[in-house]
Amino acid sequence: MKEIITGEKTVYDGKILSLKLYDVLAKGIPAKREIVRKGGAVAIVPVTGDGRIVMVRQFRLAADEELLEIPAGLMDPGEEPLESAKRELREETGFTAEKWTHITEFYPSAGFTDEYIHIFMAENLTPGETDFDETEDLVTEIYSLDDLINMICSGEIHDGKTVCGISLAKVLR
Amino acid sequence: MKEIITGEKTVYDGKILSLKLYDVLAKGIPAKREIVRKGGAVAIVPVTGDGRIVMVRQFRLAADEELLEIPAGLMDPGEEPLESAKRELREETGFTAEKWTHITEFYPSAGFTDEYIHIFMAENLTPGETDFDETEDLVTEIYSLDDLINMICSGEIHDGKTVCGISLAKVLR
Repeated sequence: MKEIITGEKTVYDGKILSLKLYDVLAKGIPAKREIVRKGGAVAIVPVTGDGRIVMVRQFRLAADEELLEIPAGLMDPGEEPLESAKRELREETGFTAEKWTHITEFYPSAGFTDEYIHIFMAENLTPGETDFDETEDLVTEIYSLDDLINMICSGEIHDGKTVCGISLAKVLR
Repeated sequence: MKEIITGEKTVYDGKILSLKLYDVLAKGIPAKREIVRKGGAVAIVPVTGDGRIVMVRQFRLAADEELLEIPAGLMDPGEEPLESAKRELREETGFTAEKWTHITEFYPSAGFTDEYIHIFMAENLTPGETDFDETEDLVTEIYSLDDLINMICSGEIHDGKTVCGISLAKVLR
């Protein structure tokens, strides 16, 4: 079933992504594939002592709107996923967590990008200071899991990793 | 919280995506944003009469492996999401469905792309003939919802829209 690469070209090599064009043979037939190469990412479902979830609201240029999301971020070079997740949770929300569980990992959009994201559940939280990047602007909000499921079904939440993390957390808890 | 665009450039304009570079002011500070512009997509959770789910297995060049996914595809120009979903389910699996429910919609990776995907549940299925694109190579497989949840948690399934669709289907059923 594998496609055979017969040619490749780098169209763009940037800060967070690069764009590659491939000539392939798919079922023996020549075809073109446009692929965005990216590093890894992490996201966290932070659960408070009373079972509620810590979310962040931020502006996303790609969507041209503010999205309500679980805390997340890009892995730094050389970082392990859990290490990135601990860093991002602290930077974006101030919380640290005693108990960490890897709940799933996936390609957000395997049709065109190799971006790969690991999702963790974080429990036994302790509040602390946030540490945003200078151009980051995030607001922390806390919701019950059932309210978040309703917001996923109504379309009020429409961020993919958040739909994954919250839905799976509801299944697992 | 909104970022102000002060400049933009199209780096690449291709078949399924284009790549744009933006100069923005984020919290008043100049920054660069790399954004992939894409059309819409659909995915379907097809539920059989005995509550099992129809899946497809296919090679994904971006992941360099075969992935087990819910049926999905890109929307054609001018198509409504439900129309695309009906077409993709029939083309990829041969099934048509009497009952369609929109269960969620989201940006798979809002940090860098405006790709947007609608997920439907399809019930009361009738089998029929598949109609692949000439370079598509898909195998249909049918699993119980609980087996799929286990495969999501073990990492055997690691396709984002599939994690979303299956986890949410488990919550809703």
